[in-house]
Amino acid sequence: MNIVLLSGGSGKRLWPLSNDVRSKQFIKIFRTEDGSYESMVQRVCRQIRKADASALVTIATSKTQVSAIHNQLGEGVGISVEPCRRDTFPAIALAVAYLADVKGIDPQEVVVVCPVDPYVGDDYFEALKELERLAAGGEANLALMGIEPTYPSEKYGYIIPENEENVATVSTFKEKPDAATAAEYIRKGALWNGGVFAFRLKYMLDKAHELIDFTDYHDLFAKYDTLTSISFDYAVVEKEAKIQVLRFSGQWKDLGTWNTLTEAMEENVVGDAVMNETCENVHVINELNVPVLAMGLHDVVISASPEGILVSDKEQSSYIKPFVDGLDQRVMFAEKSWGSFRVMDVEEESLTIKVTLKAGHRMNYHSHRNRDEVWVVTSGTGRTIVDGMEQEVRAGDVITMQAGCRHTIIAEGELKLVEIQLGREISVHDKQKYELEYD
Amino acid sequence: MNIVLLSGGSGKRLWPLSNDVRSKQFIKIFRTEDGSYESMVQRVCRQIRKADASALVTIATSKTQVSAIHNQLGEGVGISVEPCRRDTFPAIALAVAYLADVKGIDPQEVVVVCPVDPYVGDDYFEALKELERLAAGGEANLALMGIEPTYPSEKYGYIIPENEENVATVSTFKEKPDAATAAEYIRKGALWNGGVFAFRLKYMLDKAHELIDFTDYHDLFAKYDTLTSISFDYAVVEKEAKIQVLRFSGQWKDLGTWNTLTEAMEENVVGDAVMNETCENVHVINELNVPVLAMGLHDVVISASPEGILVSDKEQSSYIKPFVDGLDQRVMFAEKSWGSFRVMDVEEESLTIKVTLKAGHRMNYHSHRNRDEVWVVTSGTGRTIVDGMEQEVRAGDVITMQAGCRHTIIAEGELKLVEIQLGREISVHDKQKYELEYD
Repeated sequence: MNIVLLSGGSGKRLWPLSNDVRSKQFIKIFRTEDGSYESMVQRVCRQIRKADASALVTIATSKTQVSAIHNQLGEGVGISVEPCRRDTFPAIALAVAYLADVKGIDPQEVVVVCPVDPYVGDDYFEALKELERLAAGGEANLALMGIEPTYPSEKYGYIIPENEENVATVSTFKEKPDAATAAEYIRKGALWNGGVFAFRLKYMLDKAHELIDFTDYHDLFAKYDTLTSISFDYAVVEKEAKIQVLRFSGQWKDLGTWNTLTEAMEENVVGDAVMNETCENVHVINELNVPVLAMGLHDVVISASPEGILVSDKEQSSYIKPFVDGLDQRVMFAEKSWGSFRVMDVEEESLTIKVTLKAGHRMNYHSHRNRDEVWVVTSGTGRTIVDGMEQEVRAGDVITMQAGCRHTIIAEGELKLVEIQLGREISVHDKQKYELEYD
Repeated sequence: MNIVLLSGGSGKRLWPLSNDVRSKQFIKIFRTEDGSYESMVQRVCRQIRKADASALVTIATSKTQVSAIHNQLGEGVGISVEPCRRDTFPAIALAVAYLADVKGIDPQEVVVVCPVDPYVGDDYFEALKELERLAAGGEANLALMGIEPTYPSEKYGYIIPENEENVATVSTFKEKPDAATAAEYIRKGALWNGGVFAFRLKYMLDKAHELIDFTDYHDLFAKYDTLTSISFDYAVVEKEAKIQVLRFSGQWKDLGTWNTLTEAMEENVVGDAVMNETCENVHVINELNVPVLAMGLHDVVISASPEGILVSDKEQSSYIKPFVDGLDQRVMFAEKSWGSFRVMDVEEESLTIKVTLKAGHRMNYHSHRNRDEVWVVTSGTGRTIVDGMEQEVRAGDVITMQAGCRHTIIAEGELKLVEIQLGREISVHDKQKYELEYD
């Protein structure tokens, strides 16, 4: 199976665990059999491998997620990187061009596209295989998954099939309705449109060339920022006459809010937390290194990270977005391809940051105009290059760098350091990158 | 008025804001008229000054609280420092010896003793003056305050007066009863014993000499650790025949739990916090520098500090102690006479701490056996002395100190630094202090 997972943008609905640089699909929140935790994207990839060990998985995403994907999935998945956000049709066009031109997939093969973040069981992946068979069968150009509604949701588009068979042709599509209209649709046998579909690669390449003037993947990538934003539903689905829908009645949860996310958690506590016996239906996800103590709470989610602390009634948690938008926040932690950082202290003219470099990784070679920096290595060994001078470093070593001085650090094993930034105008934008001579 | 405030030990009931080194009476939680916050001890001293501008205030406390008292009250109060904890009778004996021998108070003057932490109005201090008059009048050796009970509490001892007059002689004292017995006492006109009383200084000095073999304050201080622990009630009150009780019906709250403390707060939020409109009777006290977001909660207290995060139903919060006892915690922040510190990061072989030194203050001159240290000055100016070598320092300067090396830093204005401790056996006990040549 060729499967394209659409990995969406930053989410604020799961603040403080998701932020501008960490999307919800990368939060490690699901306990696995070996006792460790996996994220949504790790879970779905594990499930795909279980359903089809030889599946070719491609993740269509933005540049900001590439590090997180490599960190969590290794090199075993392809990544179609959107240079900027242009909605789902350009993203899918780019992904299919990537499959054809970079991965060399035969245009007659079928491609399945689905979001990266639904919480589903194994039967979902069996349904994906069925979709693949439908698309290969050729009766329709597009095979869609229609999810049996569990309530009259206002969050989804609806598919009205011609009949109630397991596989049916589509009569019409409906935009996100209000609850009353949704209930009416459901009475008529409507299904949720979860954005899951299959097609022959050639079909979608043709559609892409029809709507976009490009030669191949590299050309499309190069002109991506000139493309018009347009959704796949609008550009393709609503204009296609030959569509089949496959009815899916298995578990399918959209874990977009704390309320739904905690329903999917197998344990009530992730991280350092104590609950007394009077707590009921309480979930704590604590990424800080100090304990959370919860007493006498009901139907509450507590989530703590270096960005902040959320304490919310579970139902109320779905209304979080405007409040998080109202917080004017510096990014306090992030995972990078080379490791991670956490802001430990913010002062007017200094910033103290803990930096962890993965073994064999390094920072960019860079300088700052308006700040000096001090590194104190706290564990591990490696090498620094400062204005071209290389030296070995280990725990206890101190490196001071004046503004303008070019610097990097290369970790041998895992290396941790405290970085202290000093200056009147400390900004993440004050960074000039350079090539190293031997790069 | 000569007033002795008994300032008790560390409290865990207000975790994470109180800890082994910060008692509840020093938490700045009460909004003042000028918009700043004051602690219990600051509030009570302000109220005393308002009632009697020339009051001589002495705080009887342990060594661990001296820095906090100086920080919060300045030099305007006397401090009778108990070298170790020996219950209330030795503490009061030491305090009266201090008043007589250090402060030179006439033995015929009256002394009023009360706890440092009740939350009371101005009428309480008028009642203290009345107690003082009763003790001066000489009809009784002890004048006690009896607080009119508001419910059959199991937390207090009870005073049974001879009659229901405003001032009465005491018939008998009762230990903390169960609720049913308390209700019975209250029907008979019993009053709470809040530990508030007045006496002539001479009376208590005589009692002290009667029960303890000592010459003067300095002698008593020197042999304090040899004294037997005994409560004032047991040693004096229960054996004294001539006691008057003054009925007090004003506001008197014991702010020992989050439940009662938040009742006394004038605002629902102290620190960085946002509450949505569906929160009811929620209090947030946030000492961290990241926001708390509270949504849809009822009757909940949220408290966050570098020690941890409490989220509790208010009523349940009174059962906190065993849970906090179960947390095996390093002290993560503290106020000292010279400033404050906050632990920012704990690793196996390193500790990163933010240190703030007050203008003109300095650390002890000290060394460590098993750890190296690095200081990075992040703001302010001052001087370091390292193995006798003195140098001026300012923001950006880095000082490295090997294990065994003697070091201190002296702040000119307020000075902040990041201290990184490095070694295999980092412990707060690994500290050797030295005199400086010019001390």
